[in-house]
Amino acid sequence: MTSTATLDLSLELLRQPSVTPIDHTCQNIMADRLAKIGFNIENMRFDDVDNLWARKGTESPVFCFAGHTDVVPTGSLDAWGSDPFQPEIRDGKLYGRGSADMKTALAAMVVASERFVAKHPNHKGSIAFLITSDEEGPSINGTVKVVETLEARHEKMTWCLVGEPSSTNTLGDIVKNGRRGSLNANVTIKGKQGHVAYPHLAVNPIHTASKAIAELCETVWDNGNEYFPATTFQISNINAGTGATNVVPGTMNVLFNFRYSTEVTAEELKARTLEILDRHGVEYDISWTLSGLPFLTPVGELVNAARDAIREVTGTETELSTSGGTSDGRFIAPTGAQVLELGVLNATIHQINEHVNVEELEPLSEIYEQILVKLLA
Amino acid sequence: MTSTATLDLSLELLRQPSVTPIDHTCQNIMADRLAKIGFNIENMRFDDVDNLWARKGTESPVFCFAGHTDVVPTGSLDAWGSDPFQPEIRDGKLYGRGSADMKTALAAMVVASERFVAKHPNHKGSIAFLITSDEEGPSINGTVKVVETLEARHEKMTWCLVGEPSSTNTLGDIVKNGRRGSLNANVTIKGKQGHVAYPHLAVNPIHTASKAIAELCETVWDNGNEYFPATTFQISNINAGTGATNVVPGTMNVLFNFRYSTEVTAEELKARTLEILDRHGVEYDISWTLSGLPFLTPVGELVNAARDAIREVTGTETELSTSGGTSDGRFIAPTGAQVLELGVLNATIHQINEHVNVEELEPLSEIYEQILVKLLA
Repeated sequence: MTSTATLDLSLELLRQPSVTPIDHTCQNIMADRLAKIGFNIENMRFDDVDNLWARKGTESPVFCFAGHTDVVPTGSLDAWGSDPFQPEIRDGKLYGRGSADMKTALAAMVVASERFVAKHPNHKGSIAFLITSDEEGPSINGTVKVVETLEARHEKMTWCLVGEPSSTNTLGDIVKNGRRGSLNANVTIKGKQGHVAYPHLAVNPIHTASKAIAELCETVWDNGNEYFPATTFQISNINAGTGATNVVPGTMNVLFNFRYSTEVTAEELKARTLEILDRHGVEYDISWTLSGLPFLTPVGELVNAARDAIREVTGTETELSTSGGTSDGRFIAPTGAQVLELGVLNATIHQINEHVNVEELEPLSEIYEQILVKLLA
Repeated sequence: MTSTATLDLSLELLRQPSVTPIDHTCQNIMADRLAKIGFNIENMRFDDVDNLWARKGTESPVFCFAGHTDVVPTGSLDAWGSDPFQPEIRDGKLYGRGSADMKTALAAMVVASERFVAKHPNHKGSIAFLITSDEEGPSINGTVKVVETLEARHEKMTWCLVGEPSSTNTLGDIVKNGRRGSLNANVTIKGKQGHVAYPHLAVNPIHTASKAIAELCETVWDNGNEYFPATTFQISNINAGTGATNVVPGTMNVLFNFRYSTEVTAEELKARTLEILDRHGVEYDISWTLSGLPFLTPVGELVNAARDAIREVTGTETELSTSGGTSDGRFIAPTGAQVLELGVLNATIHQINEHVNVEELEPLSEIYEQILVKLLA
């Protein structure tokens, strides 16, 4: 029966232990299905990363499903209720690593495409798939490289639906129409090593930086706007000391991250950070890494198609959001494509006993299919 | 010639690689010399630590030389100008691990005792040596255990001269007639782990503790007094984070130390610390270790004998001080003994290329001898 098509393909994908960056044949499984309904298949391997670019049709507009076959490591196997790579259904929930993030969405995309093509063999434009196995890892040889390849040959996406688990309480309650920027810093606070009994001969970097750090922690960077929550600052790591209790450390290392809205720029955040460090007389070296610029897909064809499809399939009025972690959408949006993230509930992603509700798999596939209908039928 | 006696014995001791807690026959070398001039030798080994208790005479008062044969590790051998355990004289300086802390003082004590006994065979009271090889380590099986043994058999020291390197600019310019207390704390700041992109779902312990830490760093705990400098607070270690840049850590560990005067008590410092943490709403576990109570030997027979001997030998007016690191004097002072620390310059202790001025070795031995003369001749 067709109602199990998404579940069946999900199970097949979930049985592959595709821990990042290993694809473990997942893309072949998808490509075989897509080839049968007329997709042209391109395997784009960069270094140790498998990527799939599949396209049906040569015309514009181009609707692209985007996602990843790689999953995060399982953590302690003892803590799982069942083997993370032997998917199991218990109490209506499908357990397995990647069940929420994001192999069930990949299955839903393939099944939606199959059904759409069967019903609309002469659809408008093109349908494409951009699938990587390097989303959970360094993200160097994945979506970025595929997008570069497409841009070099002037192949454009009009709309891109990323199947990341965007839902919070019920399927489709939230779609992500943008993401905050992400700016990382690595700071070395410089002091002078010494003995705790002779602090006047040492400069303790923990002490000299303490007021600056307290101020950074309580600074309001902006108040966000209609689409973005307020910019946040979080220190992820702080380390100083030799382990010995009688030594004043010579340096302290601090790593922190901004998730920032379109109300500030990375340059402004850098300048304000340095002003605080300098005003407190801190001696430091700092290096910055911009992990992603903020991007936004305002209300338009893609957002409207998704909203309508969700309402028709689930009865839910979806909400637009730009919160949450980075996704590969950040690499696609700069090409000018409208980018939207829509997938299953994200409550258990990256966790022990990751799972999804089985009853949400077919509705997700239907939503994807209805979006295709609204844009390409 | 007698003028090289202290240097010769120093060289013999410095050739032993007695990295804490290994004595490497140093105590035997000393004991052989002391036995020849009438000392009774007791080797007191506790676990892996060699200790020497040597005493000449059975009467009171008891003058005791105290010290240690163990040394701190060498650090990178490449950085040394010569092998740290092949003592070498260059430009009037004797280089070797333990040359300042404190094998030359041990040699000066033995030579001073030999000369004093030769000139005053019928001296008053007793001369003793309390030597450990666990001063630079955990200090559990060293001086503490010897003192317990002596106390259990009601064997008392009247005066104790610890040969720690007390001098700062010239030999004998400073003697230590007490030491600050040392109070250590190990604090675990409790938060809730999470993703940096969802800080509202996490509690970042680095952030919640930042203002309390800044306040602890700038608090004036007291202003010291006639004998003691102001109490100091130093954080030696601070650690939080998994290494990943996208994870809010669940806990932060902080180690800090108070060196405190007799103007405050350990209990007061604990209470004031907790008040600051509590007032800032920090969630924490804390454990305290009292490494040493402050002690003080006011001006009296021992201080006066040392002052006069230094003035006669070097012309220097010595200064009393209670600053600096802990020493084994903290274990001896509670028995009621007058305790004084007097030794060579401490500028290079625990460092690469540790050294002493060769020309100060005989004067140090003469000072020790003159103190014996003033107290026991």
